Amino acid sequence: MIVAIKGAGRMARGIGTRALAGGHEVHLLDDDPERAERLAAELAPHAAIAQVQAVADLGDADLVVVATPYPAGRDYVAGLGDLVNGAVVVDISNPVDFTTMDGLRTPPGTSAAEEMAAASPGARVVKAFNTTFAKTLETGEVAGRPLDVFLAGDDTRAKEMVADLVESGGMRPIDAGPLRRARELEAFMFLNLTLQDRLGLNQESAIKILS
Amino acid sequence: MIVAIKGAGRMARGIGTRALAGGHEVHLLDDDPERAERLAAELAPHAAIAQVQAVADLGDADLVVVATPYPAGRDYVAGLGDLVNGAVVVDISNPVDFTTMDGLRTPPGTSAAEEMAAASPGARVVKAFNTTFAKTLETGEVAGRPLDVFLAGDDTRAKEMVADLVESGGMRPIDAGPLRRARELEAFMFLNLTLQDRLGLNQESAIKILS
Repeated sequence: MIVAIKGAGRMARGIGTRALAGGHEVHLLDDDPERAERLAAELAPHAAIAQVQAVADLGDADLVVVATPYPAGRDYVAGLGDLVNGAVVVDISNPVDFTTMDGLRTPPGTSAAEEMAAASPGARVVKAFNTTFAKTLETGEVAGRPLDVFLAGDDTRAKEMVADLVESGGMRPIDAGPLRRARELEAFMFLNLTLQDRLGLNQESAIKILS
Repeated sequence: MIVAIKGAGRMARGIGTRALAGGHEVHLLDDDPERAERLAAELAPHAAIAQVQAVADLGDADLVVVATPYPAGRDYVAGLGDLVNGAVVVDISNPVDFTTMDGLRTPPGTSAAEEMAAASPGARVVKAFNTTFAKTLETGEVAGRPLDVFLAGDDTRAKEMVADLVESGGMRPIDAGPLRRARELEAFMFLNLTLQDRLGLNQESAIKILS
């Protein structure tokens, strides 16, 4: 697949690394083209020739990962208008209120992912990667086990494509149900974020369902 | 400590087993006294002599674990009136709408634990054990690792007592912050419950923060 990633920060690097490990082509898009170029150069050692490049637009991407913070990601997708009609769009955001660290910026009874879908009704929005820290995505593992990547979405085929991306990158996709389950995924990752300092985990931890 | 457990079902058995493993005294209370007697007899092999017994009332319990489903547990505690003034009360409930499996019965922006505290303002309510399945509590482990037991509460000393119970039983207490963090704990366990059949986990799994 051609995986377009909007953003060139730590999550873009993590997801880009996994996508390249899975043999996909990665296109990086950033408001600052030089930033995208720098990340492409940084990821190049993980890639086969020409497998990663900075690009100017979505082009023929199969899947668009929006790796910019809430609510900029939602607004970016809405601003694309008809360009995202039918597109598989991955919302990885955590709408945490980082000033208080006491809750989410989204109202109770909804989620950032549902807000994105409402603002861009033509897009096939899938929630994924919001519970995985950037550092753990560099290897796709935690404590020697594959990361769990929870997926929520209303479009089965779109969710399968994201599951393929996850699995090909060496991680375990977990289908958590419809897009509204993003409420619970965003809630728990907010809680997990509040624990990182307290437990001295430094965002190198991961939420896993063990059995 | 003397740990009173209201209820004599699977969660009472699981938490009772851990409490006995930690060297605590377990008092079992049920609306059906014979049911409490039966569980006491079942737990007796895990206990030193006279360490577990069915009782008729809270007596001098240090800690009360309410192991009856929502909202019966909340109403039980409220019905105790002044008897729970100052008592450490552990809410383990998951207010899942089991008819739809599509959400919680509590309104958005609150939690079963906060409802219990509001109905019994004299009690020192701690949320705990809502993310641990009964079967995993029998050993206190999952995949060879100690269970994570997430705690939320507004009374520091009460939370420390529950953390002692957890730790003495061989598990890892994780202080998740104030009682309102029960919202996120209940939300994620609801999601985890929806996954059990889908992943073929049969409630023998556990949520862990791995690092």
